[in-house]
Formats: sequence, structure tokens, C-alpha cells
Amino acid sequence: MSQWLNTEQPIDQSTLEGRVVVAAGFQMLCPGCVDQTIPQLKRVHAMFPADEVAVIGLHTVFEHHEAMGPPALAAFLHEYKVAFPVAVDAPSPDGGPIPSTMRRYAMQGTPTLLLIDRSWHLRRQSFGHIADLQLGAEIMALVCEEPRINEGIAGESGSSSSTLDCDEHGCRVR
Amino acid sequence: MSQWLNTEQPIDQSTLEGRVVVAAGFQMLCPGCVDQTIPQLKRVHAMFPADEVAVIGLHTVFEHHEAMGPPALAAFLHEYKVAFPVAVDAPSPDGGPIPSTMRRYAMQGTPTLLLIDRSWHLRRQSFGHIADLQLGAEIMALVCEEPRINEGIAGESGSSSSTLDCDEHGCRVR
Amino acid sequence: MSQWLNTEQPIDQSTLEGRVVVAAGFQMLCPGCVDQTIPQLKRVHAMFPADEVAVIGLHTVFEHHEAMGPPALAAFLHEYKVAFPVAVDAPSPDGGPIPSTMRRYAMQGTPTLLLIDRSWHLRRQSFGHIADLQLGAEIMALVCEEPRINEGIAGESGSSSSTLDCDEHGCRVR
Amino acid sequence: MSQWLNTEQPIDQSTLEGRVVVAAGFQMLCPGCVDQTIPQLKRVHAMFPADEVAVIGLHTVFEHHEAMGPPALAAFLHEYKVAFPVAVDAPSPDGGPIPSTMRRYAMQGTPTLLLIDRSWHLRRQSFGHIADLQLGAEIMALVCEEPRINEGIAGESGSSSSTLDCDEHGCRVR
Repeated sequence: MSQWLNTEQPIDQSTLEGRVVVAAGFQMLCPGCVDQTIPQLKRVHAMFPADEVAVIGLHTVFEHHEAMGPPALAAFLHEYKVAFPVAVDAPSPDGGPIPSTMRRYAMQGTPTLLLIDRSWHLRRQSFGHIADLQLGAEIMALVCEEPRINEGIAGESGSSSSTLDCDEHGCRVR
Repeated sequence: MSQWLNTEQPIDQSTLEGRVVVAAGFQMLCPGCVDQTIPQLKRVHAMFPADEVAVIGLHTVFEHHEAMGPPALAAFLHEYKVAFPVAVDAPSPDGGPIPSTMRRYAMQGTPTLLLIDRSWHLRRQSFGHIADLQLGAEIMALVCEEPRINEGIAGESGSSSSTLDCDEHGCRVR
Repeated sequence: MSQWLNTEQPIDQSTLEGRVVVAAGFQMLCPGCVDQTIPQLKRVHAMFPADEVAVIGLHTVFEHHEAMGPPALAAFLHEYKVAFPVAVDAPSPDGGPIPSTMRRYAMQGTPTLLLIDRSWHLRRQSFGHIADLQLGAEIMALVCEEPRINEGIAGESGSSSSTLDCDEHGCRVR
Repeated sequence: MSQWLNTEQPIDQSTLEGRVVVAAGFQMLCPGCVDQTIPQLKRVHAMFPADEVAVIGLHTVFEHHEAMGPPALAAFLHEYKVAFPVAVDAPSPDGGPIPSTMRRYAMQGTPTLLLIDRSWHLRRQSFGHIADLQLGAEIMALVCEEPRINEGIAGESGSSSSTLDCDEHGCRVR
């Protein structure tokens, strides 16, 4: 991550230890993210105890970079009353449009939902929206689990080109 | 129960053994029930595996009895495409307007949500609507539990008079 | 009409003289009618002045007749807080399931929206839902018109058999 | 106006002559504008004939100026599929945060709806959202009118200080 908002210090695996993590890759100009993902993350943040479930936004900008820089993101988070920590994905090391974490996890676009268990395993990564009933159930299933031995998340290489392709469900990398 | 719809035979504790039960007291002419509870129960029914979670409607009519008899209920269930079993609450033994089970559990009105665990303990009884995110989490918390020794549900005596008082949240017994 | 609710005396052309009429054929067990048409008629009733625009419901039951008789309809109108006049369509003279007015106007099902101008001409008859923006515009276009010479509404013969076929848009006569 | 988007040449009174104008002051980071006003303007744009009704957005930024400049607005209009012309309000001549047109019309905040008749008279200016049914009716009432003698819109002086104060209805100037 190149930068964090809504938190005094960067968040990492040690900060989150033992908690379930609900994270989402989003863009502040992705209509489906603004309309569905951000409100859903706010509901998760409001409902689950913070010492059990951590909510994190990941600003994975892959187009319109000039319009979605950190000052614009800060204004967005303020106006949309987002209180949970948000990380700014670091630019691609090779200068391509897809940022670093987004590429490492081969995310298809925004929004991308990530569920990480208490043992720091990635248990769901999916493009698009899932219903509240299902998300509530999946989070609680992870909350109920005992932590396992930590093996880390295995990332994958993503593609290096992108064109924005948005509809009501989100914006895809093409 | 005086009658069951959408099931070949009456459902009881033995039929449900070991499953989590999501039930709701409703009335087919309660706007909040039609607008929120029935669609929510349909979503629960569609999402959770039937051998883990049983969904049951309980038609607890406490006014307009002449308009919500079993043939009207059957037409309602057909048109609203309700596929889960629905029980018709038995009339009050003393001739009052509040039906038998509704009175025994001292339900405040419709909708009333009931969550029963694998060991047949009543874990939630609440008047009105709860959000999908919370309901999904609460159901999954019960699914994750081991069954305990069965001690049955302890009912309470309800009041015997009623006046219908509906708003967008539901219809209350007064 | 066989009966009127929410009005002291039956409504006819003379009562409505010079007003725009917004009417809808509906059934109390038609999900699309309950979810969309009734709330929309309530919004029209609340927004337009009563001496300019009359709102009328027409209960055109073509199946489940036993579940939607006048006492059930009265309970429905009470619980859904419907304050505008509602007519009960008269049974078919030949004993078929489609009631008299529904058949005369060859309505395709419920909901059916009817817009009648100040000169008692039928200007729109359509099955299904139309958006509020369009309905507001169409009503106002009729309000702005001068009354013309009254020539009456020309009805057509409908079919005499019916099977209920409901989806989220409404219930069709087949 | 300092700039126009979605149009080849600036729009003025002569371009709009004889048409009803539906305009709205908005900000791309005002949640109520994004959630309600932009979709409503898109519905108006889609429904009314372009030679009768012109739809215009007015980007009246009064805070977070650095996050809502023209490149950011262009990205926003692209992603939200806004096809009608949008003007960028010119900065205040005295260097204050409230832009020029917003100040001249003493707008209270965003969104602000403006309805202008065929004779270029301002007929409605209101802060916040109005329902589709009402907006459809008000537009059509203006469409039905004959043009009058053109006298132009009389503007007023606005205040010169601002603090952003957003809730679900919009963002107010304080």
C-alpha cells in the first residue's frame, strides 16, 4: 500500500491478528462500488464487533488515475462518511495502469470482495456484489472458526493492461 | 397448529431435529409482513441448505379473521410463490381473537421472528424486521453450534384481547 | 360495478364531470399491484388536487374469487390505508371468471392503468406498471387540456376464460 | 460558465429558445446528488423529447475544489453515463469558495433544482429532492404553456462564505 486513510498507522497482518477481515477493492468513481459496496461495508463495520471483524477498503484505481488521487479519495471518504481504514493501492512497479495489490491478486475489477479468516487465509475473492444475507452468514462462519496455523495468502500475477468497462455491477479490467 | 400448507404432513420437533429453525409469525394482510418478512424468508429458504436450516411461516391471525381463512391464505401463498411450509395458528381456546401459539409465546404482533437452535431452544423472538446482514449472521452462528441436550421451549401466557394497529413496521397487538 | 368502498355513494360519469380520472384495475392478491400500483395511486391521490384529478381503484378479480370477496377487500383497504374510492367489478353475466368491466374493456390482466380525460375519453389503457415521472407528465397533460364534447368511452368485448399467470409485473389473463 | 462538457458548443438562452429547461446544481462528491439527482435527470432526459425539454447539469462546486476539477468531472460523467450537457460554474470573482452562478442565484447548496419555462422565466428553484411524480407533472405543466414575452431571469446576490454540510438529502452552504 502506498498510503492509508482513516487510521493513524498502516495496518498489516500483525495488527489484524486473530480477526476476520472483510475487505473490498473499490474505486471512488465506480458506480456499483459507491451504490452498493461502500454502504455494505459500512453496515458490516457498524454491526460486527471491531475486535472480531476488521473492515478495510482498498482503493484499487486502474483508470482515471488523475481524478482519483489521495486528496480526491479523502474528500470522498469524508462526504460519504466512511470511517473504516482505507488503503491506497500502490502504483504498478512497471508503470502499467493496474496497481500493485490488484495485480498481485489478479482482481478482475471493482468491486472485489475479500474475506480473510482469523488465520490469515483468503477464503473468498469475488468480483461484484453479494447479498447481505449471504455476506452476514459467511462472515459469521469465519468468526465461529478457530484460528489455524498461519500460512499466508498466496497471490497470483495479474495482467498488465486495462480498459475500464463499467456497468451497474462494477468496473471490469479488460 | 390447526392446519399446514406447503407440506404433506404436519411438522413437529421430531421432523426438525438437529436443524436450525427460522420461523416468523405473519398475517397475509399485514403490509410489513408482505413487503419485508415474506421476501426475507424466501431469501433464507433459497440460500441455506434445507438439511441445516428449516424455514417455517406461522399464520397468526388476530383480526380480520373472516378475510384471512385457509383458502385465502392458500391463494396468497400461491400468488406470492411461497414454497416453504406454513402453519395456521389454532384459534384461541377461550374464543378470544389472539390465536393459540401467538398467545402462548406472548407475541407482540406481526411480524414476529423466531430463531430456534439445533437443540430446540428459542434463541430469538422479536417483533418487527431485522436486517438481512444481521439475520444471516445469527442463523450462521446457530448453524455453527453443536446441538445441546434438548430441554424444550418454555412458553408464556399471552394477553387475551387485541386491536389491530399496523404501520410500515408491522401490526401490533394492543 | 357491484359495490363501492371508501365512498358514501357510487361514482359515475356525472360525479366525475370535468375531472381527469386516474383509475387502475387491480387485485388484492396480485403482488405487482400491492407492491407498485396501490402505492402509486396513493401518491397520485396525495399530490393532485381532488377537484382536478379523481383516483379510483377497480377491483377486477378474475381468480381466487373466494379469497378476494368484499369483506377481504375492505380489510385490505383498511390495512393498506387506501383512502380513495374502490369499485368492485361485477361478476360476469355468463358466469365466467372475468368480471364485467374487465371484460368489456378487454383488460389483459392486473394491474391495468386507465387515464380518462375531462371529456370522459379513455386516453390510456395499459397493462403493467409505468414510471412515476411518465405518469405525472401524462396526468398533467390531461389536466392542462380543455374539456371536449363528450362522446363516451367505447368498450370492447373481452374473452371469457381465464387462468391466473402472475409475475413481478402483474397477473395476466390467459 | 467556465466550461461545458457533453456539448460541442456552450449553451445559452438562444440555443434553448422556446424549450422548457430542467437544470440542477450538483457536485460529483455530494452523495444525495449522485444517488438521486443524477439518476432523475437521466430519466427526464430519456423521457421527454429533446426539442421540448432541455436537461442541463450545473457543476456548482463549493468545497473540495481540488478533488472536483474538470478532469475529475469528465471521468465522473463518463462512468455514470451522463449524456446531457453539463456546465462548470465559474469561480467566484472575489476568490470565495462559492462559484459565480451559484452565488448569483443564492442557491442554498446541492442539489438545487431549477425549472425554466419556454419564455426563459425561472419557475422553480429549490434545494433538495422532489419526487418523480411531482417533477413529471411540473415539467409537463410548463410544456403545455405558450411562450410569453421574454424578460429574462433576475438573479440575486448570494452569500460569500461556505462550509460543506452534507446529509442524505444533499450538501448545504452554511
